[in-house]
Amino acid sequence: MISKKFGIIGGDMRQYHLAKSLKKDGHKIQITGFENYKTATDFIVNHTISDISENSDYIILPLPISHDGINVISPFSEKKINLDLIKNFENKKIFGGSIPDKLNLKPSTNSKFYDFYREDLMILNAVPTAEGAVIEAFKNLDKTIGSSKCLVTGYGRIGKILCNLLKNMGAKVTATMRSSKDFAWTQTQNIKSTTFENSVAEYDVIFNTIPTIIFDYNYLKKISKSTIIIDLASKPGGIDRISAEKLGIKVIHALGLPGKYFPKTAGEIIKTVIYKIIEEENL
Amino acid sequence: MISKKFGIIGGDMRQYHLAKSLKKDGHKIQITGFENYKTATDFIVNHTISDISENSDYIILPLPISHDGINVISPFSEKKINLDLIKNFENKKIFGGSIPDKLNLKPSTNSKFYDFYREDLMILNAVPTAEGAVIEAFKNLDKTIGSSKCLVTGYGRIGKILCNLLKNMGAKVTATMRSSKDFAWTQTQNIKSTTFENSVAEYDVIFNTIPTIIFDYNYLKKISKSTIIIDLASKPGGIDRISAEKLGIKVIHALGLPGKYFPKTAGEIIKTVIYKIIEEENL
Amino acid sequence: MISKKFGIIGGDMRQYHLAKSLKKDGHKIQITGFENYKTATDFIVNHTISDISENSDYIILPLPISHDGINVISPFSEKKINLDLIKNFENKKIFGGSIPDKLNLKPSTNSKFYDFYREDLMILNAVPTAEGAVIEAFKNLDKTIGSSKCLVTGYGRIGKILCNLLKNMGAKVTATMRSSKDFAWTQTQNIKSTTFENSVAEYDVIFNTIPTIIFDYNYLKKISKSTIIIDLASKPGGIDRISAEKLGIKVIHALGLPGKYFPKTAGEIIKTVIYKIIEEENL
Amino acid sequence: MISKKFGIIGGDMRQYHLAKSLKKDGHKIQITGFENYKTATDFIVNHTISDISENSDYIILPLPISHDGINVISPFSEKKINLDLIKNFENKKIFGGSIPDKLNLKPSTNSKFYDFYREDLMILNAVPTAEGAVIEAFKNLDKTIGSSKCLVTGYGRIGKILCNLLKNMGAKVTATMRSSKDFAWTQTQNIKSTTFENSVAEYDVIFNTIPTIIFDYNYLKKISKSTIIIDLASKPGGIDRISAEKLGIKVIHALGLPGKYFPKTAGEIIKTVIYKIIEEENL
Repeated sequence: MISKKFGIIGGDMRQYHLAKSLKKDGHKIQITGFENYKTATDFIVNHTISDISENSDYIILPLPISHDGINVISPFSEKKINLDLIKNFENKKIFGGSIPDKLNLKPSTNSKFYDFYREDLMILNAVPTAEGAVIEAFKNLDKTIGSSKCLVTGYGRIGKILCNLLKNMGAKVTATMRSSKDFAWTQTQNIKSTTFENSVAEYDVIFNTIPTIIFDYNYLKKISKSTIIIDLASKPGGIDRISAEKLGIKVIHALGLPGKYFPKTAGEIIKTVIYKIIEEENL
Repeated sequence: MISKKFGIIGGDMRQYHLAKSLKKDGHKIQITGFENYKTATDFIVNHTISDISENSDYIILPLPISHDGINVISPFSEKKINLDLIKNFENKKIFGGSIPDKLNLKPSTNSKFYDFYREDLMILNAVPTAEGAVIEAFKNLDKTIGSSKCLVTGYGRIGKILCNLLKNMGAKVTATMRSSKDFAWTQTQNIKSTTFENSVAEYDVIFNTIPTIIFDYNYLKKISKSTIIIDLASKPGGIDRISAEKLGIKVIHALGLPGKYFPKTAGEIIKTVIYKIIEEENL
Repeated sequence: MISKKFGIIGGDMRQYHLAKSLKKDGHKIQITGFENYKTATDFIVNHTISDISENSDYIILPLPISHDGINVISPFSEKKINLDLIKNFENKKIFGGSIPDKLNLKPSTNSKFYDFYREDLMILNAVPTAEGAVIEAFKNLDKTIGSSKCLVTGYGRIGKILCNLLKNMGAKVTATMRSSKDFAWTQTQNIKSTTFENSVAEYDVIFNTIPTIIFDYNYLKKISKSTIIIDLASKPGGIDRISAEKLGIKVIHALGLPGKYFPKTAGEIIKTVIYKIIEEENL
Repeated sequence: MISKKFGIIGGDMRQYHLAKSLKKDGHKIQITGFENYKTATDFIVNHTISDISENSDYIILPLPISHDGINVISPFSEKKINLDLIKNFENKKIFGGSIPDKLNLKPSTNSKFYDFYREDLMILNAVPTAEGAVIEAFKNLDKTIGSSKCLVTGYGRIGKILCNLLKNMGAKVTATMRSSKDFAWTQTQNIKSTTFENSVAEYDVIFNTIPTIIFDYNYLKKISKSTIIIDLASKPGGIDRISAEKLGIKVIHALGLPGKYFPKTAGEIIKTVIYKIIEEENL
């Protein structure tokens, strides 16, 4: 890709690494919202929104772009970056993650939103999520992964990749699922499979990926107290916390693992998908 | 599962192994259409269609059930088994593969068709297909798989499992695909990916899984004459045969590999899916 | 194995887990040197040395048995356990790790030493060491192992198993070695290999397993400042620390990883080897 | 390596591929003993021994160089190539496999023998041997490797690599061995291990690598008649053939697999080791 001008507005360490990686690829980078990010001051020159508005072809907002629907997420800045500013950008291709439907650009601006929080980003993010889940297991187990019995509930993106990673590290892995199609897939991968209902047994770690409370009192009371549950499902997660606490079972709610443990990889993934969108849409 | 009465009508070695495996599980087996199958006469007692009609709860037809729409496939018998006979079966659960839509049971019979040629069977069959593809490669290469450069065109069921098998055997594998989703998946599996258009390079073997003629004269003339193409796609396959012959490129059209090389595994897979249907449908 | 009487004298968490695991196998356990170990008081009843001397068939000392050659290592106790006490034990099979040659039992006691720090224990310990090395990498990298370029210097027990683990996690791995035999082995494993002299390149992590200072100023000045070096070699390790510090290269000296991160696995490994010795020696 | 002059004398398809590969690397090749090799006449110009003697720096003899101790093995030629001719070569580095100790060069010739049948070649050859063993299994089984239960007796070079290959293809693998060291290694690889004496169980295939008759009548009578035994051990192999025949157990004696199935890979391996010797010996 020939050299382009990118403006990065807000975000956390992932966006910092994204900026760095874009620069390494030969692009011009302007960045805002990183005044308090100390480590890499040589690289980060904080620009103003209007600088960026004037000098960039592509704008990149974080993932998600906002928590409150008002300001762009910018943990490394004390200044607020109001989303309304973006609405006025002219002739821009604006990338962001999880852009709310109700956020509209003024038609007269000739700018357009491109949401990079799509299927391929979620698949790619499943790798740092799976490695992050392994870190959480390492922190809470006194035995190796390679000698552990693991249960993975749910066989979607994260379930598939986590099962594979654990198996490759030597663990004994069982996965739970519903569809006959997924049962067939696990069989082709030499991964033991069962339904959630029949999954109760002695495990060292349970990794949950299902975002509904399936681990209720009845299930929890049947598992060993030494089992660690690592809940990877988005809030409220899959575990009845009150019952778990009552029963003395340790639950770790582990969210946002790519950004938490692997901001560089997470930034590279965002870059990969932005490049893909640019190619697909011929931007 | 408690002991049931199965009637197996027609089919090839896969059905023979299916029958044997069902018997080993404790079921009662009656079989027809295997008069000329010599090897295992101790096991095979050929029954008549009416025996089977009277004594079985479940009927199993082959995959596919018929080539001509008139008779059940039965390569081990000289007698014809007319499909019309099946239409009259009463109170039967009739399993078969690729049952034609137009084949109807008389409503008065209280019998019902269950087609086992479904997604999960196709996924499970991708494993013997992939191993069969490796056999075809072994037959045509003078080097090991582990030292070969392989291209797999298409990343569906067979493409995914074949890529994995080849990689696990140590080959350098590149896969071609279209969707950004599949690109992301291959990346998580550490498999090199590209589009078909950009795939031209020196390979020892190309495995095609795409059932449209993508390997045309223009593509073929660019690849090395020593490349072997193994076409796994159903007829007409993916290769312009006339151009390939003109250019001196060897093409092997490899179909029906599970039944050809691994009838026992293929029979076990059919059994697995029939059991799954019985469980799901509560038959 | 039929139920035996084991006396465990001193040691850290590994010995605690060893005791627990022996108990689970049905053996009688007496333990000393764990007064300050709080968590598992239910299990740990601290016995006296004379209790143990009277009631055990097998005595187990830690790995290594002593740091100073005078007392048994016992970090969970304030009392000293003098090695001389052990010399008087009668009719005992005494297991320990790295028993000093000069430590002799009185011939009249009819007791005998069995050192479990042998080749098979070292091989088995290479797995928790490799997983521990991965933990150290996780702590110091901002990218996934699966996207990292790793160098492993030395291809002995730890080198072999670590290369495999990293490769299975998706990393790009290069190993260094000297012998043509090891070059051949890496080739069969699809691991890139080179000599140490030719290994300089951009790596995210370097894992050293060679216990002589090979990473001198000349080598270090050629590698990227962002490279993390994890030194797994016993003291003094393989890195010229002063040069590394001067050059701003981060070095982590990571020793005793099995006991540090995976005491349960480490305890199981000691048990495995003790059982093996009992079987081999017919004790 | 700069361009050199190689003379290839005798040998089978492996030497043909070796010659081709050396030529591709830019070396000058003269070859003799391939008059009846039809396929590749364009490449093969048969030279005379005296041509080669005059024009080559390096001479390459086959592996093994001779069956009868009198003539060089040359299956593609009707002419005999007497070993005595080689003894007179002057100023040559003469490579060959399994050079008999009693074969001596005249000291006055200033020529020297280099035997490439050394440890690293044997390790590298274990890969085509293992893939060849898989071909033999494919030929004799009616089920996939991925669904097979396999026993590998002996855990040397071939045993290790074959276990790995079978495991990577999805098979359930058990290996037999004696030393506690090897038991530890299999454990780190997640391969089930046992002693030969305790290995009797239902297997689909047994691969033997031990060159002494361990499969005697007593062992054989305990295994299933449907088990296939693939004997990879050099003559007389590891199986009491008379007992096996009496018991109706199928035994395949599979020798020379690299040359038989993968002459190109086998030729590349010989080249790799010759290059290594040239580098080590500074030839």
